Amino acid sequence: MSTSAAPTVETIAALIDHAILKPETTAETLAAELAIAARWRVFSVCVRPSDIAESVATLARTGVLTGTVIGFPHGTTSTAAKVAESRQAIDDGAAELDMVLRIGALRSGRTDLVEADIAAVVAAAGDTLVKVILETVFLTDEQIVAGARAAERAGAAFVKTSTGFAGGGATLHDLALMRDAVGPGMRIKASGGVRGLDTLLAMRAAGVDRFGTSATQTILTDVERLVATGAVAGTVDASSY
Amino acid sequence: MSTSAAPTVETIAALIDHAILKPETTAETLAAELAIAARWRVFSVCVRPSDIAESVATLARTGVLTGTVIGFPHGTTSTAAKVAESRQAIDDGAAELDMVLRIGALRSGRTDLVEADIAAVVAAAGDTLVKVILETVFLTDEQIVAGARAAERAGAAFVKTSTGFAGGGATLHDLALMRDAVGPGMRIKASGGVRGLDTLLAMRAAGVDRFGTSATQTILTDVERLVATGAVAGTVDASSY
Repeated sequence: MSTSAAPTVETIAALIDHAILKPETTAETLAAELAIAARWRVFSVCVRPSDIAESVATLARTGVLTGTVIGFPHGTTSTAAKVAESRQAIDDGAAELDMVLRIGALRSGRTDLVEADIAAVVAAAGDTLVKVILETVFLTDEQIVAGARAAERAGAAFVKTSTGFAGGGATLHDLALMRDAVGPGMRIKASGGVRGLDTLLAMRAAGVDRFGTSATQTILTDVERLVATGAVAGTVDASSY
Repeated sequence: MSTSAAPTVETIAALIDHAILKPETTAETLAAELAIAARWRVFSVCVRPSDIAESVATLARTGVLTGTVIGFPHGTTSTAAKVAESRQAIDDGAAELDMVLRIGALRSGRTDLVEADIAAVVAAAGDTLVKVILETVFLTDEQIVAGARAAERAGAAFVKTSTGFAGGGATLHDLALMRDAVGPGMRIKASGGVRGLDTLLAMRAAGVDRFGTSATQTILTDVERLVATGAVAGTVDASSY
């Protein structure tokens, strides 16, 4: 699905949405995390809706995009609220929207409700890219497949594993299910528990297109060390660094 | 602050907002929880925004109100989204709104932002009662006081401890702080970790006006047992039931 040469800081950073989503995060911590994103030139930050404007202003001229979350982390708000949240986010400068689908409806077999909720957000988003978070820890394999396909039918660009707030995260098993469930035009984002370079590379090899993580500094420092020592991806033993 | 005679099922049930808020809850579980609320005639249920209409229809003619949550559980969405969510909730029949304040802003000393966010929801709510969730587990004593006072200035009816999803919950210490921070017209709701009758009665004695819990059945079954055995509140030893 994906082939990759030896990783460089630039190629790995270009796959990362640096997550800054904890509810207790202060203005000071936000500033520090945005500085990490700017330093490493990640693809984007994924910030709380209340922080979009601040993030866009801080990251201007760094090339780092600002994304946000919709209906996060439970996905249980009304479609009307998700639509209003999406519009405000785009007005504030968000370049990508990671929405949580209706988990309970999916678990109840109501893929019609799940799809309609996503489609409304996709319509409100217009040209802005929408990712759909499944929260796989709550789902059976069948529900993961059904959720990914509902997201695809509704016009989302990505399907994503997890919020990082439900006690579970991305697994290779679930990512393979998602990859197989949808067409090649639909992209996959792994998030929740992506804390190290080995995990990221294994998931990348399994066809993952984007990674949500707050361990950006750890992961990219490891890449830097690999590049410095001339090690090549796939021949690295985890115990050696 | 509050005086109470021996508890009866009716007097305790009238203090309870039965919480049905987990993101993974299915339609079947929702129906079972609404049946518990109807059976015990609690004051209200507190449901996910996506379940308000279903709850209102199911509980019609039971006397049990339907409340919901706004910006839940992180409180990090935009004010515009909280306002839209509130309007939709009221259109759907919600009688009370439990909103989460901007936790990070409160921790950053920006009570002006916290207050403006609450005031916008209160304005959108009109005659509908607004409770403000502090998420005390993330706050210092000073921040709890500042948050409660911001809620009072913004026109909220209640200040409430917790969402139940942040790993902490109501404590007598925090409830006393909240009670002392605001005037007598402002009411207090304890939530998160209210799992037994002893806890509820101790908090009631400390001036708590309302309880958010999913342990409704356990608590009210205990009251029923006390009433049947003729035991009186305050003389009950926890080991005896």
